[in-house]
Amino acid sequence: MAEKVSPTLDKRVARSRATVLMETYRQLSEGGIGGVSIDAVSKRSGVSKTTIYRHWPSRSALLLEACASFGAPARVPGTGSLRGDLHALLTSLAGALDGTPWSKAYPSILDAAERDPEIATVQKQLHAAFMAPFEAVLQRACAAGEASLQGRATSELVARLVGPLFFRRWFSREAIDGRFVDAIIDAALK
Amino acid sequence: MAEKVSPTLDKRVARSRATVLMETYRQLSEGGIGGVSIDAVSKRSGVSKTTIYRHWPSRSALLLEACASFGAPARVPGTGSLRGDLHALLTSLAGALDGTPWSKAYPSILDAAERDPEIATVQKQLHAAFMAPFEAVLQRACAAGEASLQGRATSELVARLVGPLFFRRWFSREAIDGRFVDAIIDAALK
Repeated sequence: MAEKVSPTLDKRVARSRATVLMETYRQLSEGGIGGVSIDAVSKRSGVSKTTIYRHWPSRSALLLEACASFGAPARVPGTGSLRGDLHALLTSLAGALDGTPWSKAYPSILDAAERDPEIATVQKQLHAAFMAPFEAVLQRACAAGEASLQGRATSELVARLVGPLFFRRWFSREAIDGRFVDAIIDAALK
Repeated sequence: MAEKVSPTLDKRVARSRATVLMETYRQLSEGGIGGVSIDAVSKRSGVSKTTIYRHWPSRSALLLEACASFGAPARVPGTGSLRGDLHALLTSLAGALDGTPWSKAYPSILDAAERDPEIATVQKQLHAAFMAPFEAVLQRACAAGEASLQGRATSELVARLVGPLFFRRWFSREAIDGRFVDAIIDAALK
């Protein structure tokens, strides 16, 4: 018969995991992906490297979970209209892009993905998770016969909705205000 | 009377400058911005550090010129129609984004810009140079009374035209084909 894990031990494990993830995320936000070292995470979190590697088989696995658990993707909204759903998603995205640690750290993941196939996989999974709610609301509206979406590929619409916001945050470094969000939605639904 | 600089010396200076810029760009493409070191540029190009610093007062100045001289912005097209001009610019941009050293290196500049104000200035200047032809054709068409542009801010249109291409290259990593370019232009001119 398998030994029962005591609730106290469970809690302790959960706490160590959370501490490691938090410290990883802190290093990521401060110095980009190049700034994350398992040595330093272990030292600063007080969790041994052996324990860290027991939970995460590789540095990439740790990075993926650190990113995924903090820069959490939005939930799928259900406002009753496609316009309302897109407004909720883009407004939430605009907030997530506004000076948050996640938005400061993300370019370092894009950069590393250009050279490191393991990080490219991390970036691909992160991106898919972040875009999932957009795809969900577009596909739901399409299935419901929304006229403005007929004959359009979902992936094209996602690029037209999200691309301009990413452009303003990381490339042109312009503010993303409500008027801009509305203009992007208007253009997508025309 | 000022001493005349001999044409031979002029040529030699031009050659050293070109060698240094090429080596800087090579390092940038290979390892991102963190991979560029003046020491290594000097060693590999055979141009002394003193000479390098005579031409470029700082590492950022060298990086800016290396990027600007290789990832050259497109010229302003004159096809006779706004649609034709945008098609020429976006097709050329799609080519520049397709696996070129420039497109591999650019995220490292975005990343460094998040933490280093000098690199943020470099990125700002690069971005302005890359977007200038888009702004030029939009403003020319606007001045000529192009109906589809009335009441729209140029900066919003640039984000809607270029943002989706950047999104596909660096975020979703999807191909940018002619059909996608046409869809982006159609949406912008509707």
